Amino acid sequence: MDNLKKIVVIGGGTGTYTVLSGLKKYTPHLTAIVTMMDSGGSSGRLRDEFGQLPAGDVRQALVALSSESSALRELFNYRYSKGGGLEGHSFGNLFLTALAETTGGMDKAVQEASAILNIQGKVLPITTTDSTLIAEYEDGRIVEGEGNIDEPENIGDVKIKSIYLKPRATVYEPSLQAIAEADLIVMGPGDLYTSLIPNLLVAGVGEAIQKSPAKKVYIMNLMTKFGQTYGFKASDFIGELEKYVGQCINFVLINNKELPKDVIERYYEEDKDVPVQDDLQDNGFQIIRNDFLASDPVKKKSGDVLKRSLLRHDSDKLAQAIMEVI
Amino acid sequence: MDNLKKIVVIGGGTGTYTVLSGLKKYTPHLTAIVTMMDSGGSSGRLRDEFGQLPAGDVRQALVALSSESSALRELFNYRYSKGGGLEGHSFGNLFLTALAETTGGMDKAVQEASAILNIQGKVLPITTTDSTLIAEYEDGRIVEGEGNIDEPENIGDVKIKSIYLKPRATVYEPSLQAIAEADLIVMGPGDLYTSLIPNLLVAGVGEAIQKSPAKKVYIMNLMTKFGQTYGFKASDFIGELEKYVGQCINFVLINNKELPKDVIERYYEEDKDVPVQDDLQDNGFQIIRNDFLASDPVKKKSGDVLKRSLLRHDSDKLAQAIMEVI
Repeated sequence: MDNLKKIVVIGGGTGTYTVLSGLKKYTPHLTAIVTMMDSGGSSGRLRDEFGQLPAGDVRQALVALSSESSALRELFNYRYSKGGGLEGHSFGNLFLTALAETTGGMDKAVQEASAILNIQGKVLPITTTDSTLIAEYEDGRIVEGEGNIDEPENIGDVKIKSIYLKPRATVYEPSLQAIAEADLIVMGPGDLYTSLIPNLLVAGVGEAIQKSPAKKVYIMNLMTKFGQTYGFKASDFIGELEKYVGQCINFVLINNKELPKDVIERYYEEDKDVPVQDDLQDNGFQIIRNDFLASDPVKKKSGDVLKRSLLRHDSDKLAQAIMEVI
Repeated sequence: MDNLKKIVVIGGGTGTYTVLSGLKKYTPHLTAIVTMMDSGGSSGRLRDEFGQLPAGDVRQALVALSSESSALRELFNYRYSKGGGLEGHSFGNLFLTALAETTGGMDKAVQEASAILNIQGKVLPITTTDSTLIAEYEDGRIVEGEGNIDEPENIGDVKIKSIYLKPRATVYEPSLQAIAEADLIVMGPGDLYTSLIPNLLVAGVGEAIQKSPAKKVYIMNLMTKFGQTYGFKASDFIGELEKYVGQCINFVLINNKELPKDVIERYYEEDKDVPVQDDLQDNGFQIIRNDFLASDPVKKKSGDVLKRSLLRHDSDKLAQAIMEVI
């Protein structure tokens, strides 16, 4: 364990939030690089209405790394449950949008918010290009926008054939530098096509990760996700990831603690999602199997209009395993 | 000049904002006590939708006393100019409403926000009773709600005969204590019936001000306000005020610098508002006539859906005069 080493976490959403929340207890040298492709929910509405880059993934990373009081952190994740046009908006998203409007852009807003929230480490957008995520499915259909790909209609069990950005996104220079200087890069857990891969689609990012001397850790998802990774086994996740970063993964963290039966049943009934089956074999990377499961299933909060996963990784268990491989 | 003395500013709105902004440069012992009757604009919408006490007057006082960066202060006064249900909302009002929802009330929200905004001094609500301001006019008509009284329809030049709260509001104990312990109490400038007097209608406040050993300063408005103080001369403002606090005013600050002709014309064309005529005579209080005018007329900001006054007092000139009488 060496807490002087630089850790970069690449992703977005609650998976990255979980990893950051754990790691910040072990090291101050933490950088979160997050996707800027969100187009659903509160972030998406604000993006459409204000023409600012989406705030949601940035917000979650900022809250994870904030050293401020729990009241301020709770406030940032608060969702309005009433109030006409406010309903469903996260306060933090409104905050970042207002800040982007007053400072002149989401990148500057993130800098200001980092100071206000007194964050430990750094949060960086992967890009400042206003770019749309586009998925092409195996049956030829094309779906535009992260929000639509995240919760696709009538896609059924058809798989994503290719995914790309339009227009081409330019990498945010400080993110490129953080990747180059990292001692460890953590990817996942989280939605493969809508939280992790959108970062890797930004021009130059995949190559930068490959070239970086950092050890690369991938944290395997707990569950498949209908419309994205339906039918995926663990090796399929790695296979898709390697399309964008090559065979550079050094460690794969995968949960081996049994998931609670009642929760599995609810997942299957709602969305045909199942636990990711561990079919991994030594293939150039070390497999770390352990109990990485959070003990209590997550409860839905009022005002939350998106579906969010109930099973989560445990941030401390993940952080401990990560600090051991560094 | 003695900057150890305790100053209490009672009011709400931009008049109080101006006074606080000036005074905070001279003394750390500053308490703003603000009305909680606002029912118009962004505050009023949030009050209706969330059932929380209105945030607008608290917000302005917090921003005035904040020691934070200008970016954070600007953010608090930022108004959304787009975005469906967001349009016209002040960011600070959304902030305080979310905080009231997460902490359990507007009084706790103000405490939390005071820490977050690193304010110098204190901001206190006059009451935590959810009470409505009601005006009875000389022709017998009754109008309910601060917002409706502030910008009355079809009231013409009919004067307010009496004004009261329903239900009866109980004073917020820390405000009562601040009044009792004050060395100086500043009232005005600002809308007489919708910013200042609503504080004095809260049970016990008038008596507390009378009894307080503090010197009492009243800052005279620059302009009359159609529907509220139409046709009022300076002595009429004092007369109305004394109905609620008795003959206890020690100093009246009144501007004697000529107002710019073009702005006066605009005021008259829009609302038949005219400069308050100085008919004051020594009547138990000392009259301090001076140039208290801000040099530049205020510009309207985008997203601002309420009418706001263009002529303002100068915060430094007011503060200097106040510090001289303490």
